[in-house]
Amino acid sequence: MGPVTTLTVLCGDLKPPGMRDVEAAAEVRYTGEAGLAEALRGADALFVYDFLSTAVPGAWHAADRVRWLHIASAGVDPVLFPALRESDVVLTNSRGVFDDAIAEYVLGVVLTFAKDFARSLDLQRESRWQHRESERIAGKDVLVVGTGPIGRAIARLLRAAGMRVTGAGRRARTGDPDFGTVHASGELPRHLPWADYVVAVAPLTEKTKGLFDARAFAAMKPSARFINVGRGELVVTADLITALKTERIAGAALDVFETEPLPPENPLWTMENVLVSPHMSGDYLGWRDTLGEVFAENFRRWLAGEPLLNVVDKKLGYVPGAV
Amino acid sequence: MGPVTTLTVLCGDLKPPGMRDVEAAAEVRYTGEAGLAEALRGADALFVYDFLSTAVPGAWHAADRVRWLHIASAGVDPVLFPALRESDVVLTNSRGVFDDAIAEYVLGVVLTFAKDFARSLDLQRESRWQHRESERIAGKDVLVVGTGPIGRAIARLLRAAGMRVTGAGRRARTGDPDFGTVHASGELPRHLPWADYVVAVAPLTEKTKGLFDARAFAAMKPSARFINVGRGELVVTADLITALKTERIAGAALDVFETEPLPPENPLWTMENVLVSPHMSGDYLGWRDTLGEVFAENFRRWLAGEPLLNVVDKKLGYVPGAV
Repeated sequence: MGPVTTLTVLCGDLKPPGMRDVEAAAEVRYTGEAGLAEALRGADALFVYDFLSTAVPGAWHAADRVRWLHIASAGVDPVLFPALRESDVVLTNSRGVFDDAIAEYVLGVVLTFAKDFARSLDLQRESRWQHRESERIAGKDVLVVGTGPIGRAIARLLRAAGMRVTGAGRRARTGDPDFGTVHASGELPRHLPWADYVVAVAPLTEKTKGLFDARAFAAMKPSARFINVGRGELVVTADLITALKTERIAGAALDVFETEPLPPENPLWTMENVLVSPHMSGDYLGWRDTLGEVFAENFRRWLAGEPLLNVVDKKLGYVPGAV
Repeated sequence: MGPVTTLTVLCGDLKPPGMRDVEAAAEVRYTGEAGLAEALRGADALFVYDFLSTAVPGAWHAADRVRWLHIASAGVDPVLFPALRESDVVLTNSRGVFDDAIAEYVLGVVLTFAKDFARSLDLQRESRWQHRESERIAGKDVLVVGTGPIGRAIARLLRAAGMRVTGAGRRARTGDPDFGTVHASGELPRHLPWADYVVAVAPLTEKTKGLFDARAFAAMKPSARFINVGRGELVVTADLITALKTERIAGAALDVFETEPLPPENPLWTMENVLVSPHMSGDYLGWRDTLGEVFAENFRRWLAGEPLLNVVDKKLGYVPGAV
C-alpha cells in the first residue's frame, strides 16, 4: 500500500458537493483562508473551491509537496502568482461549466438595453404608464472580446438571436466557426467603432489587464453598450465611469468589478445607464453540483494517472484549444 | 376622368408617415375621434391609424360608401363590430409589422424572469450586493397560445435560444414547421401543466376571450410564468391576480390589459412577481414608418384594382393562412 494521498480544499462555510468518492480515496482537509497554510503542509493537491479567495499566494510557502491545483472557476487569475507559474504544479480549471449560462445572461442584458426594461421597471414602481419605442436586436453588431469557450457560447447564442457577431482574440483570423472574423485584441480600438454591443470576456492576463481604457471607450459609438462578464480588471474603471458620465457610450452592464463586492459608495451603483449585478452571470441553479462533478472526475483521473481535463497553459493564462 | 377617391384617416395628433403618394391620388381627410362621423360621410375608404381608438363603431352609421377599412395593427378586434362584420366592406390589417419585435420582447421577459433581473435592479437601487443563483432557459418548455405570424416568430426565436416550444391553436396537428406540435386551444388546460412559460398571443375573438381564467391558471405549474403580448381580454384579470397572489403561478409579464392605460390603482402595478409594460412590445423604432408603408402599398393596390394584402376573414377574426 502506497502512502495516503492528501487533498486540501479551500472553501468557505460551504463545502463542495459530490465529494464522497474523493473522501473515500484520500485524506481530505477542508479549510478556510485562515488555516490554509497549515492545511497545505504535506498535501499533494489543492482544490480551490472558494474561487474568489485571494489567499493562495500568501499561504503557498507551506505547499511543500503540492503537485496539482484545481480551481472551481474558468478564470485562473487568482492563482497565477509567480511562484505557481514558475513551478511544475499542474493547474486545471472548471472550463465549460459556465459557458451557456453566461451566454444567456449576456443575451438577457442585450435585450434589457434594447427593450428599455430598466426604465419600464422604474416606471412600474411609480405606477406610471408611459409608452416608448424600443430597439430591435436583430442585425445589430456585437464584438465579443475573448474567444475562449465562454466567448464562443455567447457568439453562438447572439447569432441565433439574429445579431451579427465578430470576435477579438490573441491573433486575427477569418473562417472561425463561431465568430467568422476574429480581430487581434492588440488592435482593439480599430474594431470598436462598428459595434453596437461590446462584450468583455477575455481571460485576465498581463496583456488584457486594463484593455478597456479611455482610448477604447473613445473608439466606441456613442450608442454602444459595454458588457463585462469577464473580470473587473479588464477595465480601467475610472475611464469607464467618465465615458458613461459624459455619454461617450450609451450604457454598461457589469457583472464583475475591480473590487468585489462593489463598495456601496461606488458611483456605478447609481448611474442611470448602468446595470450592476453581483458576479452571478454564470451561477445557474445546479452550478455547484457541476463544479463538484468536474473536480471529482479530474481527481479520479489524477489518482489513476490519466491525463487531466482543462490543463491551463500557465504562460498564456488559460486552457489552450479552440481559442 | 372618374370621380375623386376619398380616404378618411382616423388619427390622433400624429398623422401617419409616408402619405405623399396617397395624397397625390386621393382626397384625404385626417380626423380625430370627434370628427370621425362627419369625415366618413361620402368617403370610399377608412384608414384606422389610431388603432387603439374604439370610436369606429359609434361613427359607422355615417359610412355611406366605405368599401375598404385598413387598420394599423395586427389585432382587428376594435373594428370587428357586427355592422362591419355583416357588411361587404373589405378589412385589412398590418400583419407582419410587429412579429419579430414582439418575439424579441418575449425572449427578453423570459430572460428577465430566468436571470432575476428585476430583483437585481431593485438591489442596485439600494446599492446592495447580493449574490443569487439564477435559472437556465435552455431546455425549458414554452407553450405559445396563438399560431399566427407573431406566435410563429416567437416560437422560432425561443427555439433558436434553446427552448422547447409547442403551440396551441384552433386545431390540433403535428409536423408544424415552427411549432412541431400544435394543441387545440379548446383543450388548453390539458396542455398547460407542462409549460415553464405560457405565452398568450392569440387574436381576440369570441372563442379566445377569457381563455386564461382560474381553471387555466390552476392547470399551470406553480413555477410557471405567464406572458401576455396579445390582448388584455384574453385573460380574466381577477383570476390572474388571484393566481399570482396565492402563488398558484410564479409570475407574469403583461404588455396588454383589459383597460389601457392600466389604471394607477390596479394591483398588478405593485405585485412583486409581475412585470408591467405599456403596450409597447411590438413598437420598435421605425414601426410607424413601416405601418405607413404597409398602408400605402395596399392603397396603391386598391386604386389599381389589384388584390389587397392581409385581408381579414371577418368570421375568424384574423388573416387566414399559415395559422
